Amino acid sequence: MRTFHTVDENDIAFFESVMPGRVFSGEAVSTDYDHDEMTEYGHFMPEAVVLATSTEEVSRVLAYCNDHDIAVTPRGAGTGLCGGCVPVHGGIVLSTEKMKRVLEVDTRNMTATVEPGVLLMEFPKALEGTGLFYPPDPGEKTATMGGNAMTNAGGMRAVRYGVTRDYVLGMEVVLADGTVEVFGGKNVKTSSGYSLMDLLIGSEGTLGILTKLTVKLVAEPKVNLSLLIPFDDIDACIRAVPQVLLSGCDPTAVEFMEREVISCAETYLGKSFPDTSADAYLLIRLDGGSEAQLQPAMDTLTELLLSLGAKDVLLADTDERKESIWNARGAFLEAIKNSTSAMDECDVVVPRDAIAAFVHRMVEISRENGIRIRSFGHAGDGNLHIYVCRDGLDEQTWKTRVSSVMDALYREAERLEGQVSGEHGVGHAKKAYLARSVGERQMELMRGIKRVFDPKGILNPGKVAD
Amino acid sequence: MRTFHTVDENDIAFFESVMPGRVFSGEAVSTDYDHDEMTEYGHFMPEAVVLATSTEEVSRVLAYCNDHDIAVTPRGAGTGLCGGCVPVHGGIVLSTEKMKRVLEVDTRNMTATVEPGVLLMEFPKALEGTGLFYPPDPGEKTATMGGNAMTNAGGMRAVRYGVTRDYVLGMEVVLADGTVEVFGGKNVKTSSGYSLMDLLIGSEGTLGILTKLTVKLVAEPKVNLSLLIPFDDIDACIRAVPQVLLSGCDPTAVEFMEREVISCAETYLGKSFPDTSADAYLLIRLDGGSEAQLQPAMDTLTELLLSLGAKDVLLADTDERKESIWNARGAFLEAIKNSTSAMDECDVVVPRDAIAAFVHRMVEISRENGIRIRSFGHAGDGNLHIYVCRDGLDEQTWKTRVSSVMDALYREAERLEGQVSGEHGVGHAKKAYLARSVGERQMELMRGIKRVFDPKGILNPGKVAD
Repeated sequence: MRTFHTVDENDIAFFESVMPGRVFSGEAVSTDYDHDEMTEYGHFMPEAVVLATSTEEVSRVLAYCNDHDIAVTPRGAGTGLCGGCVPVHGGIVLSTEKMKRVLEVDTRNMTATVEPGVLLMEFPKALEGTGLFYPPDPGEKTATMGGNAMTNAGGMRAVRYGVTRDYVLGMEVVLADGTVEVFGGKNVKTSSGYSLMDLLIGSEGTLGILTKLTVKLVAEPKVNLSLLIPFDDIDACIRAVPQVLLSGCDPTAVEFMEREVISCAETYLGKSFPDTSADAYLLIRLDGGSEAQLQPAMDTLTELLLSLGAKDVLLADTDERKESIWNARGAFLEAIKNSTSAMDECDVVVPRDAIAAFVHRMVEISRENGIRIRSFGHAGDGNLHIYVCRDGLDEQTWKTRVSSVMDALYREAERLEGQVSGEHGVGHAKKAYLARSVGERQMELMRGIKRVFDPKGILNPGKVAD
Repeated sequence: MRTFHTVDENDIAFFESVMPGRVFSGEAVSTDYDHDEMTEYGHFMPEAVVLATSTEEVSRVLAYCNDHDIAVTPRGAGTGLCGGCVPVHGGIVLSTEKMKRVLEVDTRNMTATVEPGVLLMEFPKALEGTGLFYPPDPGEKTATMGGNAMTNAGGMRAVRYGVTRDYVLGMEVVLADGTVEVFGGKNVKTSSGYSLMDLLIGSEGTLGILTKLTVKLVAEPKVNLSLLIPFDDIDACIRAVPQVLLSGCDPTAVEFMEREVISCAETYLGKSFPDTSADAYLLIRLDGGSEAQLQPAMDTLTELLLSLGAKDVLLADTDERKESIWNARGAFLEAIKNSTSAMDECDVVVPRDAIAAFVHRMVEISRENGIRIRSFGHAGDGNLHIYVCRDGLDEQTWKTRVSSVMDALYREAERLEGQVSGEHGVGHAKKAYLARSVGERQMELMRGIKRVFDPKGILNPGKVAD
């Protein structure tokens, strides 16, 4: 295994010369930096944390670390779920959390250029009054836009609008040796050699550190409507999804949720959900120019869903009602986390028509292993978030069962020709499952690419294919 | 420079054993295989042409060629414009033109799986009656779907629907040593390691040979309308484009055309265009569920365009009228080709707001160099197709002027932060311009990736970054 130089006082002095007052080592390192949102995958303290504020600082630090064999783990807001920003090999954490300026909103080209640390929840403020809109909508709003790009985050609106990859037009990236390169720009299409930018998107900081991001914006839809559709039968609920997509109604979001998860969110938020009469629900969002324009789609969907076994089709047309539904949806992860002593997560994606089969098998796996599993997710994308809950299990039983459950879940995803992660990434926690899913040759190709970008292996070691 | 083994009778015997009756060498090789649609870039005869009919044949041939240092140039329909499928280093041309089965149309998952040789013009027949639709719409309908994927072809509908990359979900690819690998599948999103599939898309056969392609389909829009908008002033015409995109009317296509090019197409087709009163035109297409649903967008666009200097907004609502416009648009390339003794082409993409500046400079470049230039293109994407016409120039004058013109055009694109190719690719003809545009470090990264996939460099040598 690769060994790295342990950060010493000379290194600290260098970092301090580059970033005075923004270098933390030893006792001064906050334990916040030893984990992401999934503490289940362990705690790893960095030897130092450096907070960059410019491309030049990132470049100087990387050049130094490359020369001195120091492991560098890039980090945004630390909201990942696979340990991608956790320094498993020690060294430094290079955080871009302070690089959070919106550098430009270009209304003529319908683009924005931001520093990587801009939070997803902050960015809309920069677009107010422009009539423009950034569609990617991952659940975790305190995530950074840079982190979203580097994990190819998805989110609620992917059914209609696509994922983060579809909105990245340009990137400024610092390579392992400190070289600053610009990929893409404000062009909306290109066939100009290998798409290095697409390789960097979703590479989780293993190929370079993002320092600027140019994203595509679209004209803001003027109205949106949400439909909440209760089903008595989880099967009928999920089986309706491909029909909804085929209907031509172009939904923005098609989410799937079960009563138990909704109850969890009600408890967590202390607020009640508009309907709790059914076992399973679809939540559909439509965007458009006016309510009148959306009426034909609503009529089509209502008729279709009732014919497919829906108990009702509830329209959420007031802000209050929409909020109560979407806030609950947004709180699912935290609510489940809050309901148990520990949990592990699985973010598989399967062909949309295979979701019902996957959920079926998941219920069996839960029963077979005597463990509580909660799930929800982006039914319209075939992407499910599955949470295996420890509850009252002792350490040994939990370890054994969760490992068996994860193995079974990923095997089922493989059988259905799905993939390991729909939107959360691989980090260090999902490496073995990735390897099993894509096979040795593709892992070799990934490792080969890693060596091309980062010959000394200093960038986010131990992640993805490393 | 890399040297390859010259195909000899033993090699021919091996190929013949794999593909009996589908191996051509020496005099038996048709001269069709020595060029693509741009004969300006030279003629290169392969030593042999082999016509594969299965993945297994492609695999066995590649394994053999890799072992025997034989250059392999993959080819679809040969409709490229940059020499991408031309065997500049000799060796064999491996054509997938006979692999043209539509293997599956999966209506539940809204995907289709095809062999690479399926022609763009044939594919819609497989979707008839399904209510499904494949949005990518490159002008050259006799191109193959495999070729479209391997060049990341764009086309008319990219403004709304995106380019070929946005529709590729899965690929079966034979690597240089004959290994068959499957990338992606029917999943509509993924964050599962480096996106090797995105690297393969647009790699022009230099990293692997595509043998199966799974594409995403969408619900077919029920109606479409076309608006033809004459402008007296080319500037006003192009300057209107960003406003059209900002309007929220979600056009499918926004094309730009000049009177001279339209006249050229009228002559070529022997058919008249509905309007020839103006110097410049925008052509806008809207797709939707019904004409009533499109009415608000039409009203908004009409008012907007008239306020921006349009002479009129002509609605093409009959099939006949739509056909006369779009057939003319589809014939531009052939019409210009037919109007001159030789031509060279440039397919730059620039930020959409920079198109007017680019066209301005193009007119100056034409004047400065005393050479006729015709252009048209995807105004809504910032992607222009520019044709430099030889007309009556002698060989020496033509060579000198075209080289000076190309240099100036690409420099202008660079100045405007554009890229070398919007959708045609790099092949061997645009390599030097790519290198100048992205710089040595990015070319090094591409060459490094090439070595990871194809250590012996047998796949499509001399192309893209090689």
